[in-house]
Amino acid sequence: MAEASVKPVPLLKDELDIVIPTIRNLDFLEMWRPFFQSYHLIIVQDGDPSKTIKVPEGFDYELYNRNDINRILGPKASCISFKDSACRCFGYMVSKKKYIYTIDDDCFVAKDPSGKDINALEQHIKNLLSPSTPFFFNTLYDPYREGADFVRGYPFSLREGASTAVSHGLWLNIPDYDAPTQLVKPRERNTRYVDAVLTVPKGTLFPMCGMNLAFNRELIGPAMYFGLMGDGQPIGRYDDMWAGWCVKVICDHLGLGVKTGLPYIWHSKASNPFVNLKKEYKGIYWQEEIIPFFQSATLPRECTSVQQCYIELSKQVKEKLSKIDPYFDKLADAMVTWIEAWDELNNSSEAVSSKQPNGNATAK
Amino acid sequence: MAEASVKPVPLLKDELDIVIPTIRNLDFLEMWRPFFQSYHLIIVQDGDPSKTIKVPEGFDYELYNRNDINRILGPKASCISFKDSACRCFGYMVSKKKYIYTIDDDCFVAKDPSGKDINALEQHIKNLLSPSTPFFFNTLYDPYREGADFVRGYPFSLREGASTAVSHGLWLNIPDYDAPTQLVKPRERNTRYVDAVLTVPKGTLFPMCGMNLAFNRELIGPAMYFGLMGDGQPIGRYDDMWAGWCVKVICDHLGLGVKTGLPYIWHSKASNPFVNLKKEYKGIYWQEEIIPFFQSATLPRECTSVQQCYIELSKQVKEKLSKIDPYFDKLADAMVTWIEAWDELNNSSEAVSSKQPNGNATAK
Repeated sequence: MAEASVKPVPLLKDELDIVIPTIRNLDFLEMWRPFFQSYHLIIVQDGDPSKTIKVPEGFDYELYNRNDINRILGPKASCISFKDSACRCFGYMVSKKKYIYTIDDDCFVAKDPSGKDINALEQHIKNLLSPSTPFFFNTLYDPYREGADFVRGYPFSLREGASTAVSHGLWLNIPDYDAPTQLVKPRERNTRYVDAVLTVPKGTLFPMCGMNLAFNRELIGPAMYFGLMGDGQPIGRYDDMWAGWCVKVICDHLGLGVKTGLPYIWHSKASNPFVNLKKEYKGIYWQEEIIPFFQSATLPRECTSVQQCYIELSKQVKEKLSKIDPYFDKLADAMVTWIEAWDELNNSSEAVSSKQPNGNATAK
Repeated sequence: MAEASVKPVPLLKDELDIVIPTIRNLDFLEMWRPFFQSYHLIIVQDGDPSKTIKVPEGFDYELYNRNDINRILGPKASCISFKDSACRCFGYMVSKKKYIYTIDDDCFVAKDPSGKDINALEQHIKNLLSPSTPFFFNTLYDPYREGADFVRGYPFSLREGASTAVSHGLWLNIPDYDAPTQLVKPRERNTRYVDAVLTVPKGTLFPMCGMNLAFNRELIGPAMYFGLMGDGQPIGRYDDMWAGWCVKVICDHLGLGVKTGLPYIWHSKASNPFVNLKKEYKGIYWQEEIIPFFQSATLPRECTSVQQCYIELSKQVKEKLSKIDPYFDKLADAMVTWIEAWDELNNSSEAVSSKQPNGNATAK
């Protein structure tokens, strides 16, 4: 049933970075050791840079705090959020790998219905390495999975599928609810293990959660910007949503696929709903205008790279969303800064040397 | 987990008909007795009308053979297929109930992972009675199900959902594959129980299988035409697909929802792939043009009833698909005839009396 077993050879070991935003010691990695230890970690330390984050022995990692971000990006560091897990996208930018997996530090290894530990990363990699089916719905879910296929009536011309850019994993135990739902259903736990991976169809938006998320950095990296959230911003907890809307519009334009479903992680702790409400409440009414904007957004045919698409989207954000709040004007500018910073770090060989592999970048 | 248990009070007992197309004795009903016996059955006998179909004792049914169809519809009977399970749609037309469940006679009661018999009909009814979410994707699947809800980032304005018109159930054991896939994977069995119901998003087509299907006849009935298949036609096994494409385009236009997923039935026997290939092969290449046609089909705002939508669609079929094959010209005409027959049987009180409840209509 579930494809969750510890494999002797970790897949894509040298082609994937695990990005973890955090403000605390990373004891949660102990539980992930059998699955993560062969991979390189990029830790983005949020909050007070003078604090020392302890990483369990034996993990290969680089760590960036706010001072590092400021030093590496200079004035462009303004596009990276502070005091919000949105800061994680800095990790996407400094990675030089083809694939990224990002996970929150309150997420633990879940068990499948047979009681076996789920190797979330392995399932994400399977999702990313097999095609998506955004152009027609397959009723038996992922047709590339063992024991499944395309059903009768699925056009043969579409059976090659599309390249998969994003693999969105889910959560057992604490579901990813907004503050109002948390308040109304404080005891609701997700206990339903749905043994499926499916493609979010072309033209359909979805709420992308950053808690358990993998993507192909080469295909979609520059669109994985988590926006301006947290310190000094009027909004929080919409970082991954913002990225998800932008990513989906661009994937649809470029013919790339987005999958959701397996793997599950065990989300251990509900965040404070009162604090969340304060962070979210503007987003809750803004999204009523933002989502129709993204639903109707179209990109010109000339936009053939993610960067071009993203810059074009930033212009449309400025033009059409600034009327909601001046914040969107600032966000549109930050989107441009993000792309400039991305290109700076990713197109020059010099940028690479600013990273300090396998050690705490603050310890100098 | 799965909501499959024998309930003492059958839901919607007087508001739902079970439509079964068949050419043989209905022994398969024995297994369904605990779930179906309280409901009224409409049996559409295909093939030789002189043959007697045995129905197990204790079921409340009406049965129509080809002679009955010809007598009731007169010249309009030409729109009902012969020697193809497409004939089942005659049952939709003569029903006077709000809901229809249709099932093939080689489908048996499946078991959920806990080993409990699945009450497929009960799950379909739950699907039909709760809203759909066609306008935005919910990553935890059906948000109206117990233990689930809308996730963070789901617009609140869309949480009322849309009325559900169709509930498309799935199959354990023999999957619904086309002939080429059957030939290539003769031993593939579907053993994966995916514990989910989800809405097929607006703008996305899906391959609708008629084996295990329920719908709200008041909302979408006149679009559930299974086309011209089988005897005298160049094509077979595309009856449900045709209905699915038409239904989905019309549901999208009218703001109605289509769900797929649970419940599963146990599909016992693979049909002959060589026979299937002969029936399907034209459909396999025709669908490469038909599906883009339906993907881009739009209906004018003035079409506010299913009938209006369907007539408009028939015009577009005639205009745009006749170039593939003269068959589509005939099919477009049959679509109009179907609507005329539907309206005749459903708008006059006289039509009702032509049915012979609770007995074999041929036995006179």
